[in-house]
Amino acid sequence: MQKIRILSESDIEKLFTLPMAIEAVEKAYLQKQAGSGEIWPMIFHEFEPGRADLDIKSGNLNQEEVFGLKVVSWYGANPEKKLPALFGTSLIFDIKTGAPKAVLNAGPITAYRTGAAGAIGAKYLARKDAKQLLVVGCGEIATFLIAATLITLPQIEKTVIINPWKPELAVEKLEELVTKVENLLNEAGVERHAAITAETAAEEAVRASDVILTATPSYEPLIKEEWVQPGTHFSCVGSDMTGKQEIDSSIFKNARIFGDDVSQCLCVGECEKPYKEGVFTHLDGEIGEVISGNIIGRNSEEEITIFDSTGIALQDLASAAVILKEAEKHGYGVMADI
Amino acid sequence: MQKIRILSESDIEKLFTLPMAIEAVEKAYLQKQAGSGEIWPMIFHEFEPGRADLDIKSGNLNQEEVFGLKVVSWYGANPEKKLPALFGTSLIFDIKTGAPKAVLNAGPITAYRTGAAGAIGAKYLARKDAKQLLVVGCGEIATFLIAATLITLPQIEKTVIINPWKPELAVEKLEELVTKVENLLNEAGVERHAAITAETAAEEAVRASDVILTATPSYEPLIKEEWVQPGTHFSCVGSDMTGKQEIDSSIFKNARIFGDDVSQCLCVGECEKPYKEGVFTHLDGEIGEVISGNIIGRNSEEEITIFDSTGIALQDLASAAVILKEAEKHGYGVMADI
Repeated sequence: MQKIRILSESDIEKLFTLPMAIEAVEKAYLQKQAGSGEIWPMIFHEFEPGRADLDIKSGNLNQEEVFGLKVVSWYGANPEKKLPALFGTSLIFDIKTGAPKAVLNAGPITAYRTGAAGAIGAKYLARKDAKQLLVVGCGEIATFLIAATLITLPQIEKTVIINPWKPELAVEKLEELVTKVENLLNEAGVERHAAITAETAAEEAVRASDVILTATPSYEPLIKEEWVQPGTHFSCVGSDMTGKQEIDSSIFKNARIFGDDVSQCLCVGECEKPYKEGVFTHLDGEIGEVISGNIIGRNSEEEITIFDSTGIALQDLASAAVILKEAEKHGYGVMADI
Repeated sequence: MQKIRILSESDIEKLFTLPMAIEAVEKAYLQKQAGSGEIWPMIFHEFEPGRADLDIKSGNLNQEEVFGLKVVSWYGANPEKKLPALFGTSLIFDIKTGAPKAVLNAGPITAYRTGAAGAIGAKYLARKDAKQLLVVGCGEIATFLIAATLITLPQIEKTVIINPWKPELAVEKLEELVTKVENLLNEAGVERHAAITAETAAEEAVRASDVILTATPSYEPLIKEEWVQPGTHFSCVGSDMTGKQEIDSSIFKNARIFGDDVSQCLCVGECEKPYKEGVFTHLDGEIGEVISGNIIGRNSEEEITIFDSTGIALQDLASAAVILKEAEKHGYGVMADI
């Protein structure tokens, strides 16, 4: 009789940390370049446009000996029923036999791996002397982006949070956000040195920042080109669907541009609109090529760099694989006959 | 805390019967026509061509209030490791909220719903006076096809099993196959009246049969056109991948042709080769249109009818939904936090 391991949200929160996520996601990007990690076609289905939709991201990761998928459903009206708007569920298989291995609540995994992705972009593309980090958006992902980037860029001295839609919201939520960042750093065993503040003036915050991470569901650019200083790095993680955009298209004009998956970036990522508008003709590469050293990331201190993180199945698979190893070692989760 | 139900192979074998599968699959076909059941793009991945592959079939079924997917992996070398070559796993969600509901071992579900599909084709397209059933192939699916068709066509007096590749194999396996058919009929509460025999001469068996069900993994036609008598009905369930073929292309020439999903039939089904060879230009419809009465199935006693059953996600979803209802009622499976 075959057995399958079920890992709940709370199991995963106990087992997973940002350093584990950062290591797993870097490995996933590298395997994508090496051809030992493959992404299968994404399925996107709208139950009711703008109200309820879903995507299925799947693929295989040979070094971790897994294949699998993640289903993420978004139901905008769920919070009225006291249910989460998002549900994420991963199903993982053994690549040696095709047997099912585990079901994981992918909600926390998505937050960790998305924070890790933005921070990896900053690690490989930001200036070495970057001192100020700006996070645009003050949802849950913002806390993961901040904590992960304070791990990958320990030289950061100041972190600023802004919310261009409702500028006061970032200020109101600051204490809650800082507590969450502290918790993520604590579980990672990392001490925080950087100050974290919230500001209401987007332009000033952008002008003063070296690294800008965007994590909003915006369909209109929130960051204007004229605010952006030479040498700024952007990791954009909010755009994951046709039509979304967080930063001015013209920022792409002379930027060095990387993505997690070129074709997905051009279809649904931050790259989509400027590419379709003809602002740039091709990405400079995928982030895995920068990590592996095949392509140079940043060429100069003045260059604008952009990492378009649309979110790929391999991040989820690599995260699930490392969580599963820990769960097996420590006996977490429910084992059920299948 | 959200909970998910895990149903094992043995849970499903206890809960599911062929009459339940037949009813579920008919409803699924009807919902496909009504637009309340949708099939999402199929994912097919080859790990090693001809040695290990996988498909993911997904969709939504609004009346049953579910969406979900089934992953079927095939690893040809597994039996050497004393593992099954096929693993099937279904993940089912609540369509009202997007929350995960259940994980099911889809192995037995696939066998039941495939048997049901072939039998439904025979129910709606065979002549009312059909007396002899022929099943081509003597694998596990053959037993489900026979039992299901003896339920949907109670007038059948004789069932013949042949195996054109190794003619003796059908004779050798007869006793085992009959026992399995008996078990399936017993759990369905149906008494068997039809004799079941195995024969070695394919031509004679085809000439004498009114209803022919094919369930082989063949890439070359096994049934010759000149053997086929007027009025014969075919349900072909074996072709589910590009290049497979069980019956002569020329049988399609003047036949009335139905499928479970027109585009899938033309891509990977029994229809693929004759369609690409130009033997016919279009299917006459989908089986759901015949069930609903929108299209007449058989026009005359002399007509050859063909039902190309490629296997669609809605069959699995409808089956999972009815199994889940029973499991909830009787408390089957393991409930785990997710």
